[in-house]
Amino acid sequence: MDLTLINARLVTMEQGTLGYTVTEPTTVNIHASSITSVGTQVASSHPSAIYDCKGKLVTPGLIDCHTHLVFAGNRANEFEMRLNGIPYQEIAKQGGGILSTVKATREASVEQLVELALPRLEGLTRTGVTSVEIKSGYGLTLDDEIKMLRAAKALENHRRIRVTPTLLAAHAVPPEFTGKADQYIEHVCQEIIPLVAEEKLATSVDVFCESIGFSVEQTEKVFQAAHQHGLTIKGHTEQLSNLGGTALTAQYQGLSADHIEYLDEQGVVALAESGTVATLLPGAFYFLKETQQPPIEMLRKHNVPMALATDFNPGTSPFADLTMMMNMGCTLFGLTPEETLRGVTCHAAKALGYGATRGQIKAGFDADLAIWDISHPADLSYQVGIPRLSARIVQGELCLNGGHGND
Amino acid sequence: MDLTLINARLVTMEQGTLGYTVTEPTTVNIHASSITSVGTQVASSHPSAIYDCKGKLVTPGLIDCHTHLVFAGNRANEFEMRLNGIPYQEIAKQGGGILSTVKATREASVEQLVELALPRLEGLTRTGVTSVEIKSGYGLTLDDEIKMLRAAKALENHRRIRVTPTLLAAHAVPPEFTGKADQYIEHVCQEIIPLVAEEKLATSVDVFCESIGFSVEQTEKVFQAAHQHGLTIKGHTEQLSNLGGTALTAQYQGLSADHIEYLDEQGVVALAESGTVATLLPGAFYFLKETQQPPIEMLRKHNVPMALATDFNPGTSPFADLTMMMNMGCTLFGLTPEETLRGVTCHAAKALGYGATRGQIKAGFDADLAIWDISHPADLSYQVGIPRLSARIVQGELCLNGGHGND
Ligand SMILES: [Zn+2]
Ligand SMILES: [Zn+2]
Repeated sequence: MDLTLINARLVTMEQGTLGYTVTEPTTVNIHASSITSVGTQVASSHPSAIYDCKGKLVTPGLIDCHTHLVFAGNRANEFEMRLNGIPYQEIAKQGGGILSTVKATREASVEQLVELALPRLEGLTRTGVTSVEIKSGYGLTLDDEIKMLRAAKALENHRRIRVTPTLLAAHAVPPEFTGKADQYIEHVCQEIIPLVAEEKLATSVDVFCESIGFSVEQTEKVFQAAHQHGLTIKGHTEQLSNLGGTALTAQYQGLSADHIEYLDEQGVVALAESGTVATLLPGAFYFLKETQQPPIEMLRKHNVPMALATDFNPGTSPFADLTMMMNMGCTLFGLTPEETLRGVTCHAAKALGYGATRGQIKAGFDADLAIWDISHPADLSYQVGIPRLSARIVQGELCLNGGHGND
Repeated sequence: MDLTLINARLVTMEQGTLGYTVTEPTTVNIHASSITSVGTQVASSHPSAIYDCKGKLVTPGLIDCHTHLVFAGNRANEFEMRLNGIPYQEIAKQGGGILSTVKATREASVEQLVELALPRLEGLTRTGVTSVEIKSGYGLTLDDEIKMLRAAKALENHRRIRVTPTLLAAHAVPPEFTGKADQYIEHVCQEIIPLVAEEKLATSVDVFCESIGFSVEQTEKVFQAAHQHGLTIKGHTEQLSNLGGTALTAQYQGLSADHIEYLDEQGVVALAESGTVATLLPGAFYFLKETQQPPIEMLRKHNVPMALATDFNPGTSPFADLTMMMNMGCTLFGLTPEETLRGVTCHAAKALGYGATRGQIKAGFDADLAIWDISHPADLSYQVGIPRLSARIVQGELCLNGGHGND
């Protein structure tokens, strides 16, 4: 269970400018699933457990901290109808929109959901992802939300990947509760959250707080129920308007507030004070042709850690490549390559509550790494589509060939 | 040398609406490198030459009809400096910009250029590309332009791919000719074009016709020299301003006019009359954060065939995924999924002068195909990053595993 990397040029992503500086070729000692030392002598005495990185660049394994990777159905058809000028009402009448995904997801078994998610997951793993967050939110019943969370976790049995499932029962009002959003929120708080907490199916609860989602008051009820049951919280906030969901997320010590295009300085200050991560999702911004930019300058000014994620989902961000999001972070939002790499390593780890154990190459941290055929870390956000992942290491285990693991 | 596909659900991309309709599972007979019949009985008597597509979707192999895939050097650093707020003049002073690519390319051997281009090419082939156009234009001397064209063609010896090299000596004024652009154009016309034609290193000549490139008058001189030596022409035109390069390209029966964001209706009519393809390059549009849209509605109105390409290059479009460009064609330019698929099959073939032999699944056409794990052709432009290429067929030869060919 020991592994030593030699000749690894590290980008450790530790705090400070050195974290983004490429080191001279050096050594990383791994015991079980943890990094035991960096830059010292080879600790292992077993030559078979030595992997020669041959001067390749090694970063922390990438972390996609916001996805909706598990669902059934296909909305390419809806995408095509829209581009052929068919009005939204007509598409909705034909069963399009989020409820088409809900319908298909309810009809699918855990096994089918896993099968459908695997190619999406493979898009992520082959661009260096070792940890992924996956939200529920297309079941919208107790059983179907639980089914989604189980499917998300089950992906770990099929690929070398670490999955963090998040409960997003408050994603949309299910058809059974049309016009009765408050009653649905009651159901989420009194039935779904308690059971999910009890069965440890998720550690965090997320809410889509938006004019077309749930109100700030409804969101707060969900946050309160989450805290009562010992779960941390996250929010989809300030994506399309400024309702105050981000400040509420900060008030409840949220791990992250996500999207936040419409966030104002008051909300940014709230994030800074609570230590909540701002998760930027340029894929949805691009896909929806949004023009309101997230307040990058203010986030910098107040030292709010910025994460970056795919938001992979069938309706607004069907993109399974985290490096493409890094490019969009730079191109669309003006982030620097260092900010985007922090956004998918140390800051993404923090957005999942793993800031002290993942997303950095450092003694004591989890041995989740990505080995790259590139010369400079900026290559990761500059170019898209070029195969350049040499290997991943997940919990101390070397995954060559994209790490298909036990499949 | 015979191959028969069975149970193939075809998207033939023939003219008319049927070309985009998915057929029932059927048969494609291939002899040598050509399709001999479609939808008929199995012609081959050798069972080993039968490939069961198992109901998978089969399209023409994708054609990337505009790239600058061959070059040396790395401009990630420049990308990073720009995002860190370093002014363009400072970057240029530090040797950035196109001339940094020219310098590195001149210093590289054919073998080094091939080595550097292979991962970029692999990005394309693993998203279904079977034909790629590659331009010179970073050598800017007789020897270095020839070296680039030879490197482009040599890629065929390393991967199953069909390469069309294009001479783009008139890409930029080389440092030796600073302030003497007319003299450089003379050199291109009297030295480079004749030798390239004589040695059959390219079949087309391209010019960057732009305020920061070459004038319409200079462009015309190059087009005349190309015609004198029996070469067809293409143009980088109307990308940043409306100079009239597209109409000039049409006047010289150009195969394609590329970029064309600033094209007016007169130019569109000229394309329609000459049968010149309009090649759209959304990657550069996105990367440069342009706002002027190409005149899609006018191109539709006048039935100008639209192609779509990566424009892969280190300065303005470092994206080696043609399906990402299909998504950008839809998302940024409002193309329909059918238009984007025509843009990378039949219309891209026409942009390379192969409209009668490539880009359609039809008896008599070249047997260049892509087999996909998708249910509907719109999936190709809707999602990005998900591995879904099952196999390619290049000149009648089946390439599983991305078709690494003879490597
Ligand atoms: Zn989301
Ligand atoms: Zn170009």
